[in-house]
Amino acid sequence: MEQRLSIVTLGVRDLDAARRFYVDGLGWKPTLDLDEVIFIQVGHGLLLGLFPAESLEADIHGNNKAPDTRETASAPPFTLANNVDSEPAVDKALQRAVEAGGTMLKPAQRADFGGYHGYFADPDGFRWEIAHNPGFNVEPDGRVAIVPVES
Amino acid sequence: MEQRLSIVTLGVRDLDAARRFYVDGLGWKPTLDLDEVIFIQVGHGLLLGLFPAESLEADIHGNNKAPDTRETASAPPFTLANNVDSEPAVDKALQRAVEAGGTMLKPAQRADFGGYHGYFADPDGFRWEIAHNPGFNVEPDGRVAIVPVES
Repeated sequence: MEQRLSIVTLGVRDLDAARRFYVDGLGWKPTLDLDEVIFIQVGHGLLLGLFPAESLEADIHGNNKAPDTRETASAPPFTLANNVDSEPAVDKALQRAVEAGGTMLKPAQRADFGGYHGYFADPDGFRWEIAHNPGFNVEPDGRVAIVPVES
Repeated sequence: MEQRLSIVTLGVRDLDAARRFYVDGLGWKPTLDLDEVIFIQVGHGLLLGLFPAESLEADIHGNNKAPDTRETASAPPFTLANNVDSEPAVDKALQRAVEAGGTMLKPAQRADFGGYHGYFADPDGFRWEIAHNPGFNVEPDGRVAIVPVES
């Protein structure tokens, strides 16, 4: 698993309020601004995601309950994403994380965004997504191009 | 306030356990590995910080209680840092954040790490540090050089 952070996704209570603060208030320019999620570039190949907290939980767990007692309602309402170049790399990174002592939260599978992903928790319960997203590309200058992909 | 994320600091329960997972387990190489904090580079100019949760709270609040009711014991145990080039830029960014609807948590002041910083919370309570750290430098290739500075 390469030491890389691609996206920090904050699980927000009110996406409109978050947009008013980050986009209107701070003047930050979104890379993608949709009704259901906002992505703002905050570094070379790095996005800040604003996503309703319940959508974030659904992305991690679907309609299932949290699969492990280490993850409770007190899990921090955000995730860290490590994007990789291929589907096998997703499998490999998740396996490495579990071998290192992480807890599998969502085994690798098709993702709603049209790629392939899974989640694990580190020893403190911080949640990492490992994702292959064909619609997420880092240009040579570091700019992220992100487009919805057919799922 | 420029749209930049410089550090994601996770407030961990046990720094040794976090080191065993990220450094020994995942094999990630620290930029700085001290008894009290670990920094790991996870992108161009981007660090992941591992810091004991109580140290993180003390850095934000010192010996004072949380100054605002929006921030409670349920505040997520992590921070996002936006590093800037000068002390006036810290003042300016904090002012802009408050004007945008953020809540001041720690007004700009000397920082224990030897620089100058302050904290605000966004509308969801996510906490941002605005910092000028003379010991934090991003090389042209994106590598972060971080050295302790006399405070």
